[in-house]
Amino acid sequence: MHRTKVRIVEDALDANNTIARANRDDFDRNGVTVVNFMSAPGAGKTTLLERTIADLGDVRAGVLEGDVEGSMDADRLSALHVPVTQLNTASGFGGECHLDANMVRSAIPELPLADIDLLVIENVGNLVCPAEFRVGEDIRVMVTAVTEGEDKPLKYPLMFRACDLVLINKIDLLPHLDVSVERIEANVEAVHPGVPTMRVSARTGEGIDEWRDWLVRTAAREPAGAPA
Amino acid sequence: MHRTKVRIVEDALDANNTIARANRDDFDRNGVTVVNFMSAPGAGKTTLLERTIADLGDVRAGVLEGDVEGSMDADRLSALHVPVTQLNTASGFGGECHLDANMVRSAIPELPLADIDLLVIENVGNLVCPAEFRVGEDIRVMVTAVTEGEDKPLKYPLMFRACDLVLINKIDLLPHLDVSVERIEANVEAVHPGVPTMRVSARTGEGIDEWRDWLVRTAAREPAGAPA
Repeated sequence: MHRTKVRIVEDALDANNTIARANRDDFDRNGVTVVNFMSAPGAGKTTLLERTIADLGDVRAGVLEGDVEGSMDADRLSALHVPVTQLNTASGFGGECHLDANMVRSAIPELPLADIDLLVIENVGNLVCPAEFRVGEDIRVMVTAVTEGEDKPLKYPLMFRACDLVLINKIDLLPHLDVSVERIEANVEAVHPGVPTMRVSARTGEGIDEWRDWLVRTAAREPAGAPA
Repeated sequence: MHRTKVRIVEDALDANNTIARANRDDFDRNGVTVVNFMSAPGAGKTTLLERTIADLGDVRAGVLEGDVEGSMDADRLSALHVPVTQLNTASGFGGECHLDANMVRSAIPELPLADIDLLVIENVGNLVCPAEFRVGEDIRVMVTAVTEGEDKPLKYPLMFRACDLVLINKIDLLPHLDVSVERIEANVEAVHPGVPTMRVSARTGEGIDEWRDWLVRTAAREPAGAPA
């Protein structure tokens, strides 16, 4: 019974990877660099995009916004005059807890790929399943908020291992928390040695220039490297 | 293809409900009240339990701790000298993002049901799938932290609709956030009219007495009602 279940899941992931490669081909053909942007609910993904996405110099950015329901984040980002496409996962049963390659594939006809250089796919807020489903991205970025505590890398290691950059957000709240940002960084390093991290505050703007520069370099397909 | 997928999911939920009823029968036979305790990662479930679970008067409590990996939360709660059983979901593929009835069923032989009155099942941190899988609980409680923002009830409505009590945690941080607790409460009310809410801070202890009293009343199977 258990073996059967695992087999079905592996088949689903295999089919997902096939579709993800097709998505990636479409993105590559249009010269669009794609970032899969992931975090727990409320870690600040949308606010971090609001602070950067409309101000990337020559880089023309677009956003594909994944949510179980609603279009609140898409509405916020549309106000910045970048193209935003909404993808809701609530069809089917109670709502999928992640984006998969086929959902993204269904959105591709709606994406202005010829007019953008960078596409940020804002995933559903979840630290488990989004890490398991590639959607055709070039690179994966995750956000962890210091308010979530120090132990998240140890409790959700797959997510931290799957990503190419970890943004540690809400650092303006550190004086009011019993949380050490050094301990968060050490726990990230423990589960994903060498992965770059950046301390940021979407609220105060601290660290936002570095995050913006990283997005610009990524869109230009320069080697991202570790932050200075 | 899509229809097939939905059918499989519905079958899985139906099987889950069958096993959940068997779990519930076992709990009832032992006179144990069961709370399914849910939230996003880092909302403060474990800390809220630390503040209350060892101090429930005549109520003998136990905890079933669900995590993708590790036993950090179980270790924290064991220090309080209540029986704690760990359940990891990382077998299979990359880790399940929720507890289901069969996982809880596999833990029942390890639970000291004859020696406890109240079992709190701490679910995997996730605002989507845990709401879809009953595990045999009498009642469902969720925690939302004010640091997650005001919009979570609107973005993850199923979770807020599925629960019998909403704890609004980390209210000590409100002076440092651009967040209105009244707006959070209004959004909870919008998706789940009439559900009781409590403002709490696991850090400062504010509201903890009310939450503790609620646990004691629930264990005694008194009508929970709305908080005063």
